[in-house]
Amino acid sequence: MAWDTARTKHLLLEAAVEEFAEHGPQGARVARIATRAGVNKERIYQYFGNKDQLFTAVLEAELANLATVVPLTGEQAGDLGDYAGRVMDYHRQHPHFLRLLAWEGLQSGEQDPVVAESLRARHYADKVAAITLAQQAGTATGEVDAAVLMYAVIALTAAWFTMPQLVRMLVTGSSADDPDMQRDALVTLVRRLTSA
Amino acid sequence: MAWDTARTKHLLLEAAVEEFAEHGPQGARVARIATRAGVNKERIYQYFGNKDQLFTAVLEAELANLATVVPLTGEQAGDLGDYAGRVMDYHRQHPHFLRLLAWEGLQSGEQDPVVAESLRARHYADKVAAITLAQQAGTATGEVDAAVLMYAVIALTAAWFTMPQLVRMLVTGSSADDPDMQRDALVTLVRRLTSA
Repeated sequence: MAWDTARTKHLLLEAAVEEFAEHGPQGARVARIATRAGVNKERIYQYFGNKDQLFTAVLEAELANLATVVPLTGEQAGDLGDYAGRVMDYHRQHPHFLRLLAWEGLQSGEQDPVVAESLRARHYADKVAAITLAQQAGTATGEVDAAVLMYAVIALTAAWFTMPQLVRMLVTGSSADDPDMQRDALVTLVRRLTSA
Repeated sequence: MAWDTARTKHLLLEAAVEEFAEHGPQGARVARIATRAGVNKERIYQYFGNKDQLFTAVLEAELANLATVVPLTGEQAGDLGDYAGRVMDYHRQHPHFLRLLAWEGLQSGEQDPVVAESLRARHYADKVAAITLAQQAGTATGEVDAAVLMYAVIALTAAWFTMPQLVRMLVTGSSADDPDMQRDALVTLVRRLTSA
């Protein structure tokens, strides 16, 4: 791939994640993505296909990035509180991904397959396998299904970002209204929940 | 209030909660709400004011209903797992409210006040006060701030409904893909998290 093609694709993906996070998959406009990227709209169709395929490419890139920056091995799954803290740090630096998930959750039917569903299911299966290893090693609780533990880690981490208005109304006057306190709270919650 | 006025308001609120849950506060259309309710659009402006004021009325009615149907006393806060199970039951019967919260979270800025913010903050303060009582009675853990415990209960309950695609990708092949199993899993999670 020529250097300028790679650069154009990168610019388009960066613009697309912003646009999708702001307006959701349905509300996003290909023309705005092209304008944000400073690239001709025709390039989007040429490189990615239609808007759905661009959303797929964005989600795949975001998931791959999260998995690379915040890995979860069986050993690391022995302290899921620490993992949750690192995932929260990632989302503070990259606030778009959870908004994409939240938009998708609102705009997809309960049974409709979502974009890249089997690829993403494999990604989650890797996390669940790591937690299963920790359960077998006795470092994560065996009282709860590994997939449910992963669900809990994601749910507890995500809501700070996807429902900021709830956090603001709820923690008024409590000590949990600054990012460091929220991180400490999350790590404590997840450790209570998941330790053996 | 005349009987037909009360009935018209009720029809409009029912239609409004459907429309807001489906399309979000920004995407909702007053004309569609009127059509759903079978009521002239002018009645909406007459009874509720503008679209934001209608959204406020809807959220207030939903919150009041949840608080009435699923109360939380200091004594009940001694078993937050049981409370979470009852809240989940409520949301299965009334799937709109969490979608309203999720839409609002996506469409409001981090610092913008949301509709009826002070009223809703008082609602949450009541829940936090009940948990504080349970902490003082030694039936809920004192290791975590009461507001953070309430956050955790909401986050763990909500994601089953607001991110159904995540649940589907994550719990593939696990035992947690039916509603009763999900309820059991939630109760277990919240008890682990919150018991003293």
